[in-house]
Amino acid sequence: MSLHSLGNRIARLRDEAPLVLNITNYVVMNSTANALLALGASPIMAHAVDEMDELTALSRALVINIGTLSPPWIEAMFRAGRAARRQGVPVVIDPVGCGASTLRTTTARDLVAEIAPAVIRGNASEIRALLGATGGTKGVDSVLAPDQVVADAEALAHSAGCVVSVSGPVDLIVGAGRIARVANGHPIMTRVTGMGCTSSAVTGAFLALGLSAFDAARDAMAVMGVAGEVAAERAHGPGSFPAEFLDALYHLDAPLLDARLRVTEPAP
Amino acid sequence: MSLHSLGNRIARLRDEAPLVLNITNYVVMNSTANALLALGASPIMAHAVDEMDELTALSRALVINIGTLSPPWIEAMFRAGRAARRQGVPVVIDPVGCGASTLRTTTARDLVAEIAPAVIRGNASEIRALLGATGGTKGVDSVLAPDQVVADAEALAHSAGCVVSVSGPVDLIVGAGRIARVANGHPIMTRVTGMGCTSSAVTGAFLALGLSAFDAARDAMAVMGVAGEVAAERAHGPGSFPAEFLDALYHLDAPLLDARLRVTEPAP
Amino acid sequence: MSLHSLGNRIARLRDEAPLVLNITNYVVMNSTANALLALGASPIMAHAVDEMDELTALSRALVINIGTLSPPWIEAMFRAGRAARRQGVPVVIDPVGCGASTLRTTTARDLVAEIAPAVIRGNASEIRALLGATGGTKGVDSVLAPDQVVADAEALAHSAGCVVSVSGPVDLIVGAGRIARVANGHPIMTRVTGMGCTSSAVTGAFLALGLSAFDAARDAMAVMGVAGEVAAERAHGPGSFPAEFLDALYHLDAPLLDARLRVTEPAP
Repeated sequence: MSLHSLGNRIARLRDEAPLVLNITNYVVMNSTANALLALGASPIMAHAVDEMDELTALSRALVINIGTLSPPWIEAMFRAGRAARRQGVPVVIDPVGCGASTLRTTTARDLVAEIAPAVIRGNASEIRALLGATGGTKGVDSVLAPDQVVADAEALAHSAGCVVSVSGPVDLIVGAGRIARVANGHPIMTRVTGMGCTSSAVTGAFLALGLSAFDAARDAMAVMGVAGEVAAERAHGPGSFPAEFLDALYHLDAPLLDARLRVTEPAP
Repeated sequence: MSLHSLGNRIARLRDEAPLVLNITNYVVMNSTANALLALGASPIMAHAVDEMDELTALSRALVINIGTLSPPWIEAMFRAGRAARRQGVPVVIDPVGCGASTLRTTTARDLVAEIAPAVIRGNASEIRALLGATGGTKGVDSVLAPDQVVADAEALAHSAGCVVSVSGPVDLIVGAGRIARVANGHPIMTRVTGMGCTSSAVTGAFLALGLSAFDAARDAMAVMGVAGEVAAERAHGPGSFPAEFLDALYHLDAPLLDARLRVTEPAP
Repeated sequence: MSLHSLGNRIARLRDEAPLVLNITNYVVMNSTANALLALGASPIMAHAVDEMDELTALSRALVINIGTLSPPWIEAMFRAGRAARRQGVPVVIDPVGCGASTLRTTTARDLVAEIAPAVIRGNASEIRALLGATGGTKGVDSVLAPDQVVADAEALAHSAGCVVSVSGPVDLIVGAGRIARVANGHPIMTRVTGMGCTSSAVTGAFLALGLSAFDAARDAMAVMGVAGEVAAERAHGPGSFPAEFLDALYHLDAPLLDARLRVTEPAP
C-alpha cells in the first residue's frame, strides 16, 4: 500500500463512514468530532463505563485520549480498551500531558500495557515520558533533539509492540522495521488547541478502514499536514485556522495531495 | 398562531431573552450556548444535582440531551426534569444515540416516562429506538423510509403524550392531530457535529416563549432549516459553516423567512 | 508599570509562554485554551484531584472558574487553590453564576475565603452575590447602576483583600487604593458565550508574568476590549466573532493598542 493511493483511501473513508469511538478530553470533543465528520468518518463521543462494551462493539476503531482524565473516565478507558482488544477493534492511545503528572504517566503506561494499542500518538516529550525517560514536560509541548526523538520512538515501538507516531515540526512514524517522516504542516498549528488530539482521532479513522497500524498512522499525519498547510495559507491567524482546516479536510483530494505531500519512507 | 408570525416570535425571543436551562452533552455545550445567544435567548449550562431545583425555578424551559451521559448526569436530568414538571417548566428531551447502548435507550425511555416532556426531538433511528422498535442505529445518524418515520413519530407522540420532532432531509413534527413538515435545511448540516442538538436547544427557546409544544417544535426546525440554508450558501465547507450558521441565526428576519420557508402543515 | 508598556508585556507573554492551569467550565474550555494560545501563553486544562498539586507546581498562574461546577470539580478547585496558596502561585477566581444557586454562591465564597485569590473577575451581579448583597442574577448577565457596581467592587476588594475586576459596558478594576476603568469592548461580546471566562483566563496569563494583581487584571480587560473591538468591526455577527477575536489577540501590537486603548486610572 503506497501513499500514491491516499486519495483513494480518503474516498473510501467518505464512502464507508466508519464509526470511530472516542473517549477524549473535554477541550477537543467538538473539534475532533468535526474533524472526523469533515474527513468522512462517523464519530461517537462517550465515556460511561456501562455502555463501553456495546459502543466498542459497534465501532471500527477506538481513540483513547487522556487530556482531561479523572478516575471515572480512566475506568471507562480501560473498559473500552479491554473490549476493543477482545473484539479486535484497533486502538489509538494519545497520552496527552504524559510526564506532567504521576496520574497521567501512570495511566498512560498502564493503558498501553493492558490494551496493546495499534498506535500511540503523542508529542516527543509525551513519548519520552511514556518510555520512562526523564525530560521536561511543559504542558503538552516540548522540543527535543531529532535523534533523541527517533531513538525514543523506536524504543517505545519495540517495548510496546506497536506503531509510535510522534508529531512535531517533522512528524515521525515508527513501526517494526519501518520509519516514515511527514514534513507537511505549519507552525500555526501549535497555536491552536487540539491539533495533536485531532491527529489521533484521524489515525483512528484510518485504522477503521482496516489499514495496517503503520499506514494508518502515516496517512493521518499526511492528511493533517496537508490540510494544515492549506488552512494556514488561507487563515489570518489561529482564530480563523480551525474553520479553514476543517474545510481543507473536507475538500482534500488526490491532486492536492500529489502536489503537496512531503512524506519520506526509506526502503527497509 | 401561524408561521406568518415567526418573525414576530423571533423578535419576542430577542426582546425577552428567556433563560433556557441545558443539561446537555460536552460536545455541543459551546455551540448550543452560542446558538441560543445568537437567536436571542439566555442559555445556562449546568449539571450539578444540588442546583437543579433552583436553576429550573429560574428558567423558562429545560433542555435535556443525553449525548454524553453518565450516572451523575442522569441523576441531574431526573432531578431537573421532576422540578420542571412540578413547576410547569416545559421540557425538551433529545435522546442522542438512543438505541446504540442499553444505557442510552433505558435512560431516554425512563426520562420520557417520568418527566412527560413537551417535545421529544431526535433523528429517525433514535425515535424508533425510543418506541422499542428495532432498527440499526449507527451513532447518531440513520436513514429509514419516510412512511416508517411518520408511523414511528405518530406512535411515539401517542404513547408519550407529547410532540415528536424528527430531524431529517425533511423534518417532521407530529402532535395530537397535527403534522408539519419543514423542507428547509442543507445536507452539509450532517457533516457538522451538534446540529440536531442545536435544534433541541432552539426548541427549548421557543417553548420558553410560552408557545404550544407543536408550534415551538415547528418554529425551531424552520429556524434551523432557514439559517442552515443561508449558512450553506455562504460557507466553503463544514468548517466555515458553524460561524455562518450563527451569524444567520442572529440576522434572521421576517422578509428572509417569508422568502425561504418551506413548511407545510395540512389542515387537520 | 504603565499601560504605555502593555505592548511590551504582551511581547513578554509571547516570549515566555508561561503555563497557566485552568480548572474551568466545559462550555469554554476550548475557547479559553485557544485564547491563551493566541495571546502567547501555554494553557493546561485539568481537574483530577490527584494531579492538582503537581500541575499547580508546574504552573505560573491558576484560573478557577465555577461555570459548570459539580462536587468532584469543587474538590479539585480547593485542592489546586490550596497548593497555589502554599506555592505562591497567583489565582484568579471567576464566580460564574454566583447568586443563581446556593451551590455556586457557597462554593464561590468558600473558595475566596480559603484560597485568597489575587483577582476575582466576574460580572456585576456575580460580584454582588459574592458580597452577600441580594440582587437578581439571571444566568450570567446583569445590569446594575454604575455607582452600585463601584461600591460593590470596593466592598469585595476590601473584604476579600484582593483585586476585583468587573466586566461590563465599562470594565472596572478595583484594588487597594486604586481604580481603573476600561471603556474598550463591543456589545456583540455579550452574544458570544465565554467572553467573561476568557477575560479571567487572560487575567491569569498576565498574572503568570509576575505583574501585580491590579496591573494583570487591568491589562487583561484592556486586551479583551481592544481585541473585541477589532473583531466586532470585522465580524458579521456573533458566529464570525470568535475567530476574528482570536486572530486579533494573536496580532495585537503596541501601535494598535496605543490607537485604541481607552483606559482611565485617576491618580490615587
